[in-house]
Amino acid sequence: MARYRVTLEYDGTDFVGWQRQDNGPSIQAALEAAIAGFCGETVTVHAAGRTDAGVHALGQVAHFDLDREAKPETVREALNAHLRPAPIAVLEAVQADAEFHARFDAVERRYLYRIANRRPPPALDRGRAWHVAVTLDAAAMHEAAQVLVGQHDFSSFRAAECQAKSPVRTLDEINVVRDGEELRLAVRARSFLHHQVRNIAGTLKLVGEGKWGRGDVEAALAARDRSAAGPTAPAHGLYLVAVKY
Amino acid sequence: MARYRVTLEYDGTDFVGWQRQDNGPSIQAALEAAIAGFCGETVTVHAAGRTDAGVHALGQVAHFDLDREAKPETVREALNAHLRPAPIAVLEAVQADAEFHARFDAVERRYLYRIANRRPPPALDRGRAWHVAVTLDAAAMHEAAQVLVGQHDFSSFRAAECQAKSPVRTLDEINVVRDGEELRLAVRARSFLHHQVRNIAGTLKLVGEGKWGRGDVEAALAARDRSAAGPTAPAHGLYLVAVKY
Repeated sequence: MARYRVTLEYDGTDFVGWQRQDNGPSIQAALEAAIAGFCGETVTVHAAGRTDAGVHALGQVAHFDLDREAKPETVREALNAHLRPAPIAVLEAVQADAEFHARFDAVERRYLYRIANRRPPPALDRGRAWHVAVTLDAAAMHEAAQVLVGQHDFSSFRAAECQAKSPVRTLDEINVVRDGEELRLAVRARSFLHHQVRNIAGTLKLVGEGKWGRGDVEAALAARDRSAAGPTAPAHGLYLVAVKY
Repeated sequence: MARYRVTLEYDGTDFVGWQRQDNGPSIQAALEAAIAGFCGETVTVHAAGRTDAGVHALGQVAHFDLDREAKPETVREALNAHLRPAPIAVLEAVQADAEFHARFDAVERRYLYRIANRRPPPALDRGRAWHVAVTLDAAAMHEAAQVLVGQHDFSSFRAAECQAKSPVRTLDEINVVRDGEELRLAVRARSFLHHQVRNIAGTLKLVGEGKWGRGDVEAALAARDRSAAGPTAPAHGLYLVAVKY
């Protein structure tokens, strides 16, 4: 038996999310079907982050076991062939330790949230960035976001359905930068609560519009109450960028 | 009566191209329908470049006349509302001279050709870049491309169905640069022949693979025969970037 670790890129638009579900196509099911197509084995694939419907990945990481060993490059090439025409690509496949776990061994996750910040709706970035028509103040957003850095009880930024045991997380880094008509919110942490990045994005948007100040973000965090923070930003602006082990 | 000039962004994937056709949805028809939806007028929209099926635009320019004058911002907002959910956006609308013609008055067009140059297929850039799995030498491509700069008979890079009276064009600039796993081929000219940019891209790919040298591009150009140059690169890597008047 051999364990494989794969790095994945995908367009989450037409999927119900990472996790296998009865109500539509998932990334996990597509990958498991590609594995079965390649070698006939029925496996369960475990991912570092169970991305929601519409969320994209530039560097999701997952692992699975095969009874019959194959060269990692063979696995990558065969999976990419069997995944066609789904918008999922295996960027890298490597053989991993028998103990390696994509989810539990991750020590750092990076996410990107893209905002298309211009009056006309995005055409080429439709489904790839959140369209916000009013001009946002990226510097004010960045400055207010620093309030969230460090170890905090993030209950105000946590989805009701979040299954994590504790609402305490340590946010290592958060940056908001403007690149022309695009705002890029980049975050880094060991792990995140369900909807945490989208709830942070929705809250910082209030700051960018001038409706909220840094103090309001501080108060929202301190409230430990979901209703104290801003709305959840849409899934389609979110990208799982990379996972570190 | 008032003439309007609009700048357009679109994802050409699901269109038969700019031009109205019986066999599927076109950008032109979508725009004309949006105008009719907004003000009830049936107009013909003229574009600077009649992009092929699958070709995208970051800055296509078009014009049309309205019997009843409206503020340009109203036109832009109304068209964007009526275009929804088509992946077409009006970036700008301005009132133009009664004599202005989007196609005949253009003095410069810029196109971009994107190549996703890596072994795994692109997932997020599927339909947005040409996938070339073998590593291309961008510097060699750039160097060989310079042969094409200036005024030449471009018969070797012209589609059989091209309707231009003369195969002579003046290519003002051509650049090939690598940005990580992406190659970007940028060209600038007053006007282009049908498939000229895609035929140049397909030819330079031969250079990037090391199959052709600068001299082969020179010979292909001198042959004035389509069969002497490389194959036509796929439409989905091509973007009309900007038009100058």
